[in-house]
Amino acid sequence: MTYCLGIYLNDGLVFAADTRTNAGVDAVSQFRKLHVFHKPDDRLIAVLTAGNLATTQSVMTLLEEGMDDADGEGETLYDATSMYDVAIMVGQALKKVQARDSGGPQAQSTTDFSASFIVGGQIMGRRMRLFQVYPEGNFIEATEDTPYLQIGETKYGKPILERVVTSELDLVSAAKCALVSMDSTVRSNLSVAPPIDVLIYEKDSCHAVVNTRIDEKDAYYQEISRLWAGGLRRLFDDLPQPPWSNGMDDRSKG
Amino acid sequence: MTYCLGIYLNDGLVFAADTRTNAGVDAVSQFRKLHVFHKPDDRLIAVLTAGNLATTQSVMTLLEEGMDDADGEGETLYDATSMYDVAIMVGQALKKVQARDSGGPQAQSTTDFSASFIVGGQIMGRRMRLFQVYPEGNFIEATEDTPYLQIGETKYGKPILERVVTSELDLVSAAKCALVSMDSTVRSNLSVAPPIDVLIYEKDSCHAVVNTRIDEKDAYYQEISRLWAGGLRRLFDDLPQPPWSNGMDDRSKG
Repeated sequence: MTYCLGIYLNDGLVFAADTRTNAGVDAVSQFRKLHVFHKPDDRLIAVLTAGNLATTQSVMTLLEEGMDDADGEGETLYDATSMYDVAIMVGQALKKVQARDSGGPQAQSTTDFSASFIVGGQIMGRRMRLFQVYPEGNFIEATEDTPYLQIGETKYGKPILERVVTSELDLVSAAKCALVSMDSTVRSNLSVAPPIDVLIYEKDSCHAVVNTRIDEKDAYYQEISRLWAGGLRRLFDDLPQPPWSNGMDDRSKG
Repeated sequence: MTYCLGIYLNDGLVFAADTRTNAGVDAVSQFRKLHVFHKPDDRLIAVLTAGNLATTQSVMTLLEEGMDDADGEGETLYDATSMYDVAIMVGQALKKVQARDSGGPQAQSTTDFSASFIVGGQIMGRRMRLFQVYPEGNFIEATEDTPYLQIGETKYGKPILERVVTSELDLVSAAKCALVSMDSTVRSNLSVAPPIDVLIYEKDSCHAVVNTRIDEKDAYYQEISRLWAGGLRRLFDDLPQPPWSNGMDDRSKG
């Protein structure tokens, strides 16, 4: 499994991705899932990957090294002229890889070759945008109404996003929220694990303000994880007792 | 979807179930999913249902009115001699219904006839036990290590259970925790909704201390929902800012 998250804010974009991959519980590895295409003063594009690792690695290779087109030229994400183009290219690369891998003897296999992506960033002079590319290669865009997109194991980390994230949120608080969301997921699903890659993009800057890797021994990550756990427990203990429990305490203690 | 929860404690059992069913978003209804088999001073058995409504209703009918056995006698859950027997009977009823419904023309249908159950309670003089019956009809039992079982939409409500529930927890706090877990699920999944049925069973009593239905206008439910939301938000705001955000605030405000 995997957990990747992209947040679309008025001030910029925040991305977070874990690094655990597994092909069964006896084949657990670490791979980067947050990929950056950066050309100073020209573009910053982040691509986050979930799904079959063979598929996502091949897709990333095509996006980096070029997909052969009719005239023999390989087009890469550095050639895209808008973020909309970028989303289309990711979808095309995905369909290309899936068509290749699902042919042949392995067509009989029950292996799931599918993958999904979060793609966001900005090309100088164009709009900053954030997309989610589905396993079918089509895509949706984050908007003010739904300013975050998730792929992989999305459920455990969603409640805190729903309660905190709006497009007005500042970049630092959004990054903090992404880490809390990641921490909840890591605690509940063994197949999501640190290190966690975090990238913060400031609108119209075409560079990453923060591009960092946070491992499980990171002091800040440990601190928010501990404070969150302790705070939740206190919050729960402080909730009033149910009115229909009157007298029950005595009986259950008796 | 559905969310049902059973908690196994030293002091007794706590059950909670929502009441929303849906066959597509344009066919949303309300049905009870928490069923009680009670004979004073003899037995209290709770059966919680998730999955295909036609399947679960038929299973409940068989358990209440009797499954025909070889000598023409219909055995009900009131005839079971132990909770282990009860779990077996639920699995058998499920297999019987599935075998009937998956035959015939609808064998070509892609409809999912599957269902799952949480079954717990006590028969006088025997051990109090809590089981989860899988769609295949086999079952597992809650133990001290994993004192709660969930069926349906389990993920949104799991983090709070993981942080709070141990078998030493008192019955009232466990019921409170079940409501918080239910509230998190209701907020994140439209197909889980109040009213919520709650049953609290005290060990060796063979009767329910609490057996109540909580609707969305219930003052206590609204209060804990509001306090939890506000508390989570404050807890998040109080978490320290990331160390790698130094200077970013100025820039993003500039």
